[in-house]
Amino acid sequence: MGNSLGKRFTITSFGESHGRCVGVIIDGCPAGLAIGEQEIQTEVDRRRPGDGPASTSRAEADRVEVLSGIYGGRTTGAPIGLLIWNQDVDSSQYLKDRLLPRPGHADFTAYTKYGGFNDFRGGGRFSGRITATFVMAGAVARKLLGTIGVEVVAHTVAIGGIEARVKQVEEVKANAGSNTLRCADPEVAEEMLRAIEKARTEGDSLGGVIECIALNVPAGLGEPVFDTLEGDLSRAMFAIPAVKGVEFGSGFAAAEKRGSENNDPFTIIDGRIVTLTNNAGGILGGISNGMPIVVRVAVKPTPSIAREQQTVDMEKMAPATLATRGRHDACIVPRAVPVVEAMVAVTLCDFAIRAGGIPEVII
Amino acid sequence: MGNSLGKRFTITSFGESHGRCVGVIIDGCPAGLAIGEQEIQTEVDRRRPGDGPASTSRAEADRVEVLSGIYGGRTTGAPIGLLIWNQDVDSSQYLKDRLLPRPGHADFTAYTKYGGFNDFRGGGRFSGRITATFVMAGAVARKLLGTIGVEVVAHTVAIGGIEARVKQVEEVKANAGSNTLRCADPEVAEEMLRAIEKARTEGDSLGGVIECIALNVPAGLGEPVFDTLEGDLSRAMFAIPAVKGVEFGSGFAAAEKRGSENNDPFTIIDGRIVTLTNNAGGILGGISNGMPIVVRVAVKPTPSIAREQQTVDMEKMAPATLATRGRHDACIVPRAVPVVEAMVAVTLCDFAIRAGGIPEVII
Amino acid sequence: MGNSLGKRFTITSFGESHGRCVGVIIDGCPAGLAIGEQEIQTEVDRRRPGDGPASTSRAEADRVEVLSGIYGGRTTGAPIGLLIWNQDVDSSQYLKDRLLPRPGHADFTAYTKYGGFNDFRGGGRFSGRITATFVMAGAVARKLLGTIGVEVVAHTVAIGGIEARVKQVEEVKANAGSNTLRCADPEVAEEMLRAIEKARTEGDSLGGVIECIALNVPAGLGEPVFDTLEGDLSRAMFAIPAVKGVEFGSGFAAAEKRGSENNDPFTIIDGRIVTLTNNAGGILGGISNGMPIVVRVAVKPTPSIAREQQTVDMEKMAPATLATRGRHDACIVPRAVPVVEAMVAVTLCDFAIRAGGIPEVII
Amino acid sequence: MGNSLGKRFTITSFGESHGRCVGVIIDGCPAGLAIGEQEIQTEVDRRRPGDGPASTSRAEADRVEVLSGIYGGRTTGAPIGLLIWNQDVDSSQYLKDRLLPRPGHADFTAYTKYGGFNDFRGGGRFSGRITATFVMAGAVARKLLGTIGVEVVAHTVAIGGIEARVKQVEEVKANAGSNTLRCADPEVAEEMLRAIEKARTEGDSLGGVIECIALNVPAGLGEPVFDTLEGDLSRAMFAIPAVKGVEFGSGFAAAEKRGSENNDPFTIIDGRIVTLTNNAGGILGGISNGMPIVVRVAVKPTPSIAREQQTVDMEKMAPATLATRGRHDACIVPRAVPVVEAMVAVTLCDFAIRAGGIPEVII
Repeated sequence: MGNSLGKRFTITSFGESHGRCVGVIIDGCPAGLAIGEQEIQTEVDRRRPGDGPASTSRAEADRVEVLSGIYGGRTTGAPIGLLIWNQDVDSSQYLKDRLLPRPGHADFTAYTKYGGFNDFRGGGRFSGRITATFVMAGAVARKLLGTIGVEVVAHTVAIGGIEARVKQVEEVKANAGSNTLRCADPEVAEEMLRAIEKARTEGDSLGGVIECIALNVPAGLGEPVFDTLEGDLSRAMFAIPAVKGVEFGSGFAAAEKRGSENNDPFTIIDGRIVTLTNNAGGILGGISNGMPIVVRVAVKPTPSIAREQQTVDMEKMAPATLATRGRHDACIVPRAVPVVEAMVAVTLCDFAIRAGGIPEVII
Repeated sequence: MGNSLGKRFTITSFGESHGRCVGVIIDGCPAGLAIGEQEIQTEVDRRRPGDGPASTSRAEADRVEVLSGIYGGRTTGAPIGLLIWNQDVDSSQYLKDRLLPRPGHADFTAYTKYGGFNDFRGGGRFSGRITATFVMAGAVARKLLGTIGVEVVAHTVAIGGIEARVKQVEEVKANAGSNTLRCADPEVAEEMLRAIEKARTEGDSLGGVIECIALNVPAGLGEPVFDTLEGDLSRAMFAIPAVKGVEFGSGFAAAEKRGSENNDPFTIIDGRIVTLTNNAGGILGGISNGMPIVVRVAVKPTPSIAREQQTVDMEKMAPATLATRGRHDACIVPRAVPVVEAMVAVTLCDFAIRAGGIPEVII
Repeated sequence: MGNSLGKRFTITSFGESHGRCVGVIIDGCPAGLAIGEQEIQTEVDRRRPGDGPASTSRAEADRVEVLSGIYGGRTTGAPIGLLIWNQDVDSSQYLKDRLLPRPGHADFTAYTKYGGFNDFRGGGRFSGRITATFVMAGAVARKLLGTIGVEVVAHTVAIGGIEARVKQVEEVKANAGSNTLRCADPEVAEEMLRAIEKARTEGDSLGGVIECIALNVPAGLGEPVFDTLEGDLSRAMFAIPAVKGVEFGSGFAAAEKRGSENNDPFTIIDGRIVTLTNNAGGILGGISNGMPIVVRVAVKPTPSIAREQQTVDMEKMAPATLATRGRHDACIVPRAVPVVEAMVAVTLCDFAIRAGGIPEVII
Repeated sequence: MGNSLGKRFTITSFGESHGRCVGVIIDGCPAGLAIGEQEIQTEVDRRRPGDGPASTSRAEADRVEVLSGIYGGRTTGAPIGLLIWNQDVDSSQYLKDRLLPRPGHADFTAYTKYGGFNDFRGGGRFSGRITATFVMAGAVARKLLGTIGVEVVAHTVAIGGIEARVKQVEEVKANAGSNTLRCADPEVAEEMLRAIEKARTEGDSLGGVIECIALNVPAGLGEPVFDTLEGDLSRAMFAIPAVKGVEFGSGFAAAEKRGSENNDPFTIIDGRIVTLTNNAGGILGGISNGMPIVVRVAVKPTPSIAREQQTVDMEKMAPATLATRGRHDACIVPRAVPVVEAMVAVTLCDFAIRAGGIPEVII
């Protein structure tokens, strides 16, 4: 269970890392949205491994196929089925080590929950590959958000403790795509790259922090007390493997501030009520206030490392050691950037539709 | 919308700060659970303002009434209705300032979303008082979790940047109740108290960090890829007013670690597979692994401060100033501690029932 | 579980027949709807026992109290809590016979499902009294539907096999309230009354058929393939105790017709596409077509009868006999008429909001 | 929206009649269930057109492909993706007549709801072909129900007003498969066949009634007051195109009976509490009582008929006539029989899992 997300714009993810395919069904997309296979492909391509040191060597064509819900170049109001066939798959290592859970991975919990029947090859449902289904859904969501002017952009703000300098949102939009790390501070990105390279050569990995900004989100999205905008966004973030923390606006730093510092004073600019600062990250009382939504997620270091690690044999119930030999990213942060964008877009679509901000038919 | 939480153990909150009452309906509680009004009352009393400097001067009797779902001292399987009548209410300040949104509060977003029809008195649905409904539900959830041995304990780990020293869980359980700040480090608590007192005298407020630990949670709870344990817990946390960040295990600190440090090695103790460290916070791949669940939330400083603040008149669309004169906590962190426990308990109940870990009838 | 209904206009029912109260929480009602306690009271009064032979002798004041969600005479966007305290309660018979399940009632299934912990007094959650919570929610739903011109009217079309003659909808609206049976054919109503009286004196009971018509429902409501308008309406109908069949338009009679008879030809009247007949009952492909929605429900005869019946002692596992001596209607059909209207209204509200046909704020 | 059904065993349907494929994602199927592509294929084959006069001439191979969720012949706990590629498609007639809504079909309502963007070819999402996705899901559900001994069997009980004689359930199981009409009364089936043939030659169509019986359903399934077993079963039934009525047990006939006739007396047989009759259709108070579940659905005559019909041109807003020339069944009742079984099975699975009657892992 738990493979569907959203109340009015609902995505259902399916598929496994080393199975036949990964796919997603989107239910609740309004009819009439102009979107083509190629636009979805473009987003998926952004998630693919690049050439930098941060990347895995698995090379999938990852060609998106539209199964349903789009006719004549427009959405029909029916469920949109999107699928990518798996190709470059080598499961031998997984078959050999299937009873040795990798530390930091879901092998142990999946084995426990599903009685050992889970498809463990490549991590199965728990593989980062599943996020390709998020990105496909996100591509549709972004196109839909575009009809009401909402933009979503994410960027790497820290890797292995090395922090990018704070940048204005225009700079972020301009520079985040300029380097393989998707960091809006190209100078610091160089430093980050070196740190990743160092970790890799030492058989180790690094984590980092991604920030996502949603612009032009209308005030009034969010449904407190339980379906807050923060709550649903964070839930979507934690669906991304390796995310272990989420914060909005000043976030954890707010806990160290005083009220007089952290409160955002209201003012009027261009006939619109806005706040002078944005410590709230665009959300007050669980509802968007019209300022940019700002969310940051902590990504733990890739658990797959070359170094030998201590584990157990789940059948023999005996200690064991494990060295992950498969193809792995020394740092998955950059590849997670478009995934974060996708999940933010999907969540905002859902709330915009719930609030009546996007109609049943786009004309 | 959005006032119900949970799929199989569902709570529906209602009521306003200055309306007639606040209440909660719990649907999905198994039949046969022995629970009395007094047990729920005890939890609610923990949320009430204390005597320390951290507290508001509003003094409500807050007497819990069972409306339905309990008969002969046991739950019946029917919806459990719990209610507290409001008493000590003074809405005059709110009536006077209703068009001047308080910075950091939901006044502006609520006004925008509900077209000005929202009950603004005392913050209405956005008041901290609503968390009394969470605590009532949490009391039932905790009793239910007790039937499978799960314990939930939260404590204050930081206030205004002053951090408690790391304590073992037994120490936390023993000491968290020893002081009004619910801090397991009584020495540091003294320092925190002084900081709160200082902020209060300066017309200001402080935030902080709360940690919650759930013990004896069986491995296997959580429903990835979207209904992860982290995702649903974080969503529940963000329903608590003033929470702006959530992290699990090493959380944001993981982003600065290497994989070899952050991965928790598996081992076998007493015939059970456990991890030597708990950077995962008891959750791998969105599923509990049997280790303690550890979640931390960042609580922003109370937005209600005595200092004059800049705002706008929403009708005249003109700048204005506002000094919050009502009764307010200079630091709500300690009062949020039982609320955090309640929301963690409610969420774990929901997952335990989903996984078949709690039967339809308790005998 | 299962005590909430609706996706965007959600009602959560609670309370028991002989407990403290019955109540309902409505989540998702737009803000700004003008509604008063008295309007809800008026609907509830319609459900109360009348003076005719069809009625129970239980006489409750049934005074509606608004707990939350309405301020200054208008809905606030917050959950609307509505409650009726129970008063005239005599549980002695139920205490005595609690292990002897009444044939045709839920005593046996409730005992089985809830392990005997269910509040069996007066049928507990399974009592017809619970429908007062449906009617309270229905009163709000009807007021809300009124803002888009939708009207809902139900009437008794058969009792004990005696059928009212087919009437035009205007006649139904005019005459359904003219007699205690809520039958739009006052002459046949006399005959029905005599049949009920006869059944009562023979210690027996009668069932019947209720038809409900919803007028001015906009075309386009319903969300196939699973959330069809018929499907959700029928689900709401089966929440009414004693309903055992539901049909739309020509319904079961359609099964005996030919396509050429049953198809409704399209035509244009006043610039609007309509159908010449309405065998579809206003629904094609699960979506409203703009014609009147017509639904009929079969109500079984009241299972509570004075005659001795065969049952078992659930503890001793031995045959037993039972004569229901409590206060009971010889025919509950007339009292179910406003309940049917309420559930149809609640369901249509939900679909209208889902389709964007009712905004978040009513002005 | 509305393309997912079920709370703990959830099916999401996608695809169109003349699009690339039809498919279904099943989320919530326990891990460890042994099931093969062939078993699902067998069920799908039962839905295919036969050789009799009742049948369409469209001949699809309809080969089931497993996309995900099954590994090594067993379910993995991950979403199960099942798909059939469309092949034999001729959309020319639909392209020509796309603005002329067929009476009795969803053409008009789909056009209205989706602003004309719906894929109208072959009825798109509203085609009977979509029920192939129900049958695929039903195949898995039936296999799962088999693990707790539940059997589901449906049969044709009336066509065009010609009624089969009442048969014992053993006879139904033995004979329903003996003829193309799936009628347990082979003699009457001959008569039905002649009636269908007659209607066909007259360019017309017939409807009918299908009865479905579920055996060995444990007592205690169903979640009143809203998620009743009748309510959720009926909702699932109305997802089947052409269903316009649903009844349980004595159903509409109950409305004509007296309580003393309709109540099912309790007795004890083989140490189990049972009822002597089954007018309740196995459901009391919305909860299964351990007796066979009996549900009957009214299927309207196929709206596609060869005779010329009156319609309108939706663009020109002018009267028009239409003669449906495509390939159509003169009576779809027999083909709907396995679809009814599938939807009953899917719903029962969902309730059995909710009640804890089927564990997370099948061993």
